[in-house]
Formats: sequence, C-alpha cells, structure tokens
Amino acid sequence: MPAMPLSDRVLMGPGPCNPYPEAVGALGRPMLGHLDPEFLTVLDEVNQNLRTVFRTSNSLTFPVSGTGSAGMEACLVNTVEDGDVVVVGVNGVFGDRMCEVAARCGAEVVRVQAEWGRALDPQELLEAHPSPKVIAVVHAETSTGVRNDIAELGSGKGDSLLLVDCVTSLAGIPVDIDGWGVDLAYSGTQKCLGTPPGLAPVTVSPRARERLVDRSRSWYLDFSMIADYVETGSARAYHHTAPISLVFALHAALDTILAEGLPSVIERHRACGQRLQEGLQGLGFELFAEEGHRLPELTTVWVPEGIDEAEVRAQLLNVYGIEVGGGLGAFSGKLWRIGCMGHTARHRNVTNLIGALRELLG
Amino acid sequence: MPAMPLSDRVLMGPGPCNPYPEAVGALGRPMLGHLDPEFLTVLDEVNQNLRTVFRTSNSLTFPVSGTGSAGMEACLVNTVEDGDVVVVGVNGVFGDRMCEVAARCGAEVVRVQAEWGRALDPQELLEAHPSPKVIAVVHAETSTGVRNDIAELGSGKGDSLLLVDCVTSLAGIPVDIDGWGVDLAYSGTQKCLGTPPGLAPVTVSPRARERLVDRSRSWYLDFSMIADYVETGSARAYHHTAPISLVFALHAALDTILAEGLPSVIERHRACGQRLQEGLQGLGFELFAEEGHRLPELTTVWVPEGIDEAEVRAQLLNVYGIEVGGGLGAFSGKLWRIGCMGHTARHRNVTNLIGALRELLG
Repeated sequence: MPAMPLSDRVLMGPGPCNPYPEAVGALGRPMLGHLDPEFLTVLDEVNQNLRTVFRTSNSLTFPVSGTGSAGMEACLVNTVEDGDVVVVGVNGVFGDRMCEVAARCGAEVVRVQAEWGRALDPQELLEAHPSPKVIAVVHAETSTGVRNDIAELGSGKGDSLLLVDCVTSLAGIPVDIDGWGVDLAYSGTQKCLGTPPGLAPVTVSPRARERLVDRSRSWYLDFSMIADYVETGSARAYHHTAPISLVFALHAALDTILAEGLPSVIERHRACGQRLQEGLQGLGFELFAEEGHRLPELTTVWVPEGIDEAEVRAQLLNVYGIEVGGGLGAFSGKLWRIGCMGHTARHRNVTNLIGALRELLG
Repeated sequence: MPAMPLSDRVLMGPGPCNPYPEAVGALGRPMLGHLDPEFLTVLDEVNQNLRTVFRTSNSLTFPVSGTGSAGMEACLVNTVEDGDVVVVGVNGVFGDRMCEVAARCGAEVVRVQAEWGRALDPQELLEAHPSPKVIAVVHAETSTGVRNDIAELGSGKGDSLLLVDCVTSLAGIPVDIDGWGVDLAYSGTQKCLGTPPGLAPVTVSPRARERLVDRSRSWYLDFSMIADYVETGSARAYHHTAPISLVFALHAALDTILAEGLPSVIERHRACGQRLQEGLQGLGFELFAEEGHRLPELTTVWVPEGIDEAEVRAQLLNVYGIEVGGGLGAFSGKLWRIGCMGHTARHRNVTNLIGALRELLG
C-alpha cells in the first residue's frame, strides 16, 4: 500500500482545530505505563492546570478517556437515574443531544427551547420545573455559534445540580465554574484547548459528588471508581488504561496556554473572531447568531444566495487547504460554521481565509 | 514549571507496551477533520486492516473511541437489555469485569468459573444455561496469563451470540473471528497491536447486527449510529469526533504489522514468550498459568519466597528503566505479570530483563 500524502490543513471548521505545536510534539514522548509514578505526576499536573482553566477548586477534575460526547454522557450517567427530572436548554444540536443522552439514562426530560441562533432565557430554564435533579445547558453551541448565559442559572438553581457543556467554550471565552456555581462541566480537547481529540476534561463539585448515583449504568465512565485512580492522594487504583499519549499532549497544551496567559489566550480568540466576523460581513455574508451572544471562536454565517456552498467549501479545502464546516440539521447547505480555536486562532489564518474567499467569490 | 524529564522505559508490564516507531511517528501527522475525505480514507484502511488481523469479513469493524474497557462496554451495551441472560466465563479480573458491565446493562448474569491460572471448560460454558442471549469469554486473561479456548464455543453456541475479549490476544496469538464463529469481539491498541492506548478495535458479525438492541443505554457507544459514520459507503454522518491522531497511529501500526506479516508477528511473540518463560524458570521463578494454556505475550510467575517483590520491581524501573507488572487482587504481592507485546516483543528485551533480574537477585 503506498504511503498516504500528508495534507496539511488550516482547520477552521467546528473542530478539531490545529493543535498547538507543543501538543503535537508531546504526543511522541516516550510511552509510560498508566501506573508509572512519572505518568501519575503528569496526570496530577494536567488536573491542576485544568482546574486553572475551568476556574475551580474541584478536586475531581480530570480528562475522561473519550471525546467530548463521552464527557457529556459521563456527567449525565453519573447523576441521573430512572425517573429523575432533567431540565435541558435546547437551542442547537448539542442541547438536543443532551436530551437524548439524559433520556437513555432514564431521565424524565423537560426541554426548554429557544430558536436556533438565539440564546436561551435563563429564567425560563429556572421556572421549567419546581425541583429538577439537574439543569443542563450548553455554554457555547457549536451548531449555531451562540453563547448561552450561565451565571444566572447558578444563582437561581436552588437544590438542583447545574451541568454545563463547555466543549467549545473552555479556554476560548471566559469560563468560571466556581464563580458561576456550576456543579458539573465537561469539555473536549480539540477545540480551544488546542489538543488532538480523544479526551474530555470534566470537573465535578463536592456538592455533585455527594449526589452521584450508586453504581452508574456505565462502568467505563463511573466517576466514583475513576476518582480512585485520577485524584491526587487517592489509591491510584487501576480502573482502565488512560490514553497516555493524549494526556501528554494535553499536558503540553495546557502549559502552552498558561505560559501565554489565559486572559491573553481568550483575548486572542476574541480579536480573531471579531476580525473574521467583520471580514465575512464585508464579503456579503450575514451573521447568524444573535448579536450580544456571538461566539468569537465559532462564527456562523448565512451563505449568500447564488453561491454553491458545497463547491466553494470543496475549493477551499482542495485549493487552499482550508477546512470550514457546513451547517447541521435544517441548516445543512445554508449555513457555514467557521472555527478559530486553539492554535488556529491566529490573525494570519483569518487573513488567509478572507483572502481565499475574496478570490473564490470574485 | 520546569520541563519533565522524559524517561524512556522498556514496557514489560501488562500493557501499554512500547508502540511501534511507525505508530509514534504517525501520531504527529498533520491533523485532519473527522469528515475530511482524506481522513475517511485512512479510517477505511484501518478498518480493512483490522478485518485482516481479526480474520473476519465483518463490515462493521472499526476502532471504538475509548480504551479496551470501552470496547467491552460497547459490545455488551449494544446486545444486552434488561433481563437478558448472559453467560460469562470467569477465571480472572477481566471475566469478572464482564459480569459487572453486563449486570449494569441489566443482564441476568450466569457466572461460570475456573480457578485463576487455569483455563475455562468450554463445555461447562455451553451447558450453563439453555438459551442465553450472549456467551461471553476472555480469550487472553491479562490478570493470569491464561488462554481460554474459543473454537468449541463457536461451534456449540446455538442461537446465542458469542462475545470474545481479544484485548491481549489480537496480533499476539492466532485469532480467527469468522473461523471460530465469534459474533462480537473487542481489543485494545496498547497490547500486541503496538499502538498507544485510547482505541478499542471491535468487530460485529451480520448475525449480531440483526440483534442489536434498539437505542442502547449508551449514546456514545451506540453501534447503529456509529455505523453510519465508520462504514465504507455509509452516509459518513457525524456522530462524535474520532480521536484522529490515534487513528493515524493505528493505521501505521497495522501497516507495520502486515508488512512484517501477521504469521511472523505471531511467531515473534511466541518465540520471545518462550525464551522469557525459560529464562525466568532458570532464575527460580515458577510459572503460574496452566501448561498448554500459557500466553506467550503475557507471562505470569510466582515471585520466589524471600524476595521483596515491590522493591525489586522498583529497582527494575528506577535503575534499569524496565516496567513489569504486579499481581492483581488476591495475587497482589505474590505474582508478577510480564508482558512482551507489540514492539516490546524483541529478543533484546527478553535478554535485558533476564540479565537485570540475574544482577538484582544475585
């Protein structure tokens, strides 16, 4: 079999982004066993640095051994049992996915919807049910480019657990787990964390830990068992073999992010997103997401009438080596989703994409 | 934070092994999106090469986005519903784990046990229940170094589905999914496949596909949904983001294995295991696993009386950079588990370990 050509893309879709070079370098670090004291030190440092980017002191903060959707399933399967009420905010694909996952955990799901492209109303979520076990919401909707407000949910949640999807927000826009009163959150490494996909950082508050289900439906994602391996000072008891190389990569990416400074990284995402959105509007694209709730790291635009969007995306990929994402669901063929996350969030990539589109669209 | 020293181990524990250099090199291949046509080609080739090493023509053959235990959970959660009878062979930790995972899927579990260190009796498994939905067994028990016989289960399974754990067997000893009549099998990449941990290759027979549960308890591991993304000719519909870098690594490792030739790779494991077992006996170690059912890729030995096993293992790690594994469960402190898998299965590593032990034990 001949070797595959190694195409080198500028990844401006909804994720994965281009990983930080430091993360790529760390992938090839010599393998260690999952019980090697040196690996456990790396894992401890990863968990500590995740606490910094999540802005939390939660002891149980670690990367789940799966992609972002595994993080979603892990948070739900550990908190929800048959008949528990879960209020879910739905204004895109990932809110919808939370409903489906919660239902498979046996939940009675109460959907609170907003039009795709608009933000959820926190008050409506708080009033949807008198005593839900969990209120679940997506912080940054990857399908629409909309940011939902979290802080008001934390202050009004009462006895409920607040669960937040931070897949596309963590290290891209401000996230404040403890300040907002979030009980469970999960992310993915391939977005603003600038690491290859395959891990889902999660954080679990002491309050949520007291209410974890006994013997969750999932053995692989059982937080109580995993805690005995991942927590500093725990028994470090073998549960399953961690994806060692990806943990090395996340370790390096977090070091890189914290060396640049989290506020600087967030400002870089903001500035690139703003230039991208201005540039696209200058080319005749109309922004999709509601003003005031637009994500800088994921821009959604209506493709102008008369443009063969699939053909233009194919040319971007094949001629320029730039990947942008199409719309999901009802917006397939109508929307583009353009990411500018992690190492991709550089001015040169914005300039390059706007220039390529100017050439292609005449 | 100062850079961590990069210790370079010879990994002779129960896994991970040292990955093939080609797999390590491929980890750093430029990132591609999970819907990029070039990535889908890589995935198709991985799946085809997995069919070759599994010896199957099953169309649904692909790497689950998690470690080996995720493969176990995926195979059970897609076949077992509340009240289904699952017969499980238990002669070690991983048979026991299958019982636990099946129970969490709602199964009525029928345990068929053998003493740790001895092989299961296939006839006993076949007679344990008149009509189980699933008969599940571990091919190579990583906790004991024992190989269980599979072929007799396939010919006698009747209407049941035969599910086999090939985590430590695939590409290390002969595996013949179609020839043996296995319906579902899973493996892990960090054992004899010589790839970093984080993926669980699975294969599902057409017969098993007809009997997959509707809407499995796990969304993340739902075979019916994942099939729409991973199968050649499918809609390639987005389900979750694959761990791209690990798929690149598995692609390279499979190329390397098939270039050497699967029979040669298996012979290399056999020869290294035999030399290791002879060498250990020469040093006064007694083999644990039943003769005739010993795995060459994972050797278990009783640690001789009077040896401080934890201290010797620490010296192997710290002085020689060699990792060997301790015993699990009741055998902690009494057994060693010594792996010789994937790229680690080289004569030089056997010679090195035996030499180091000779020096340490005087």
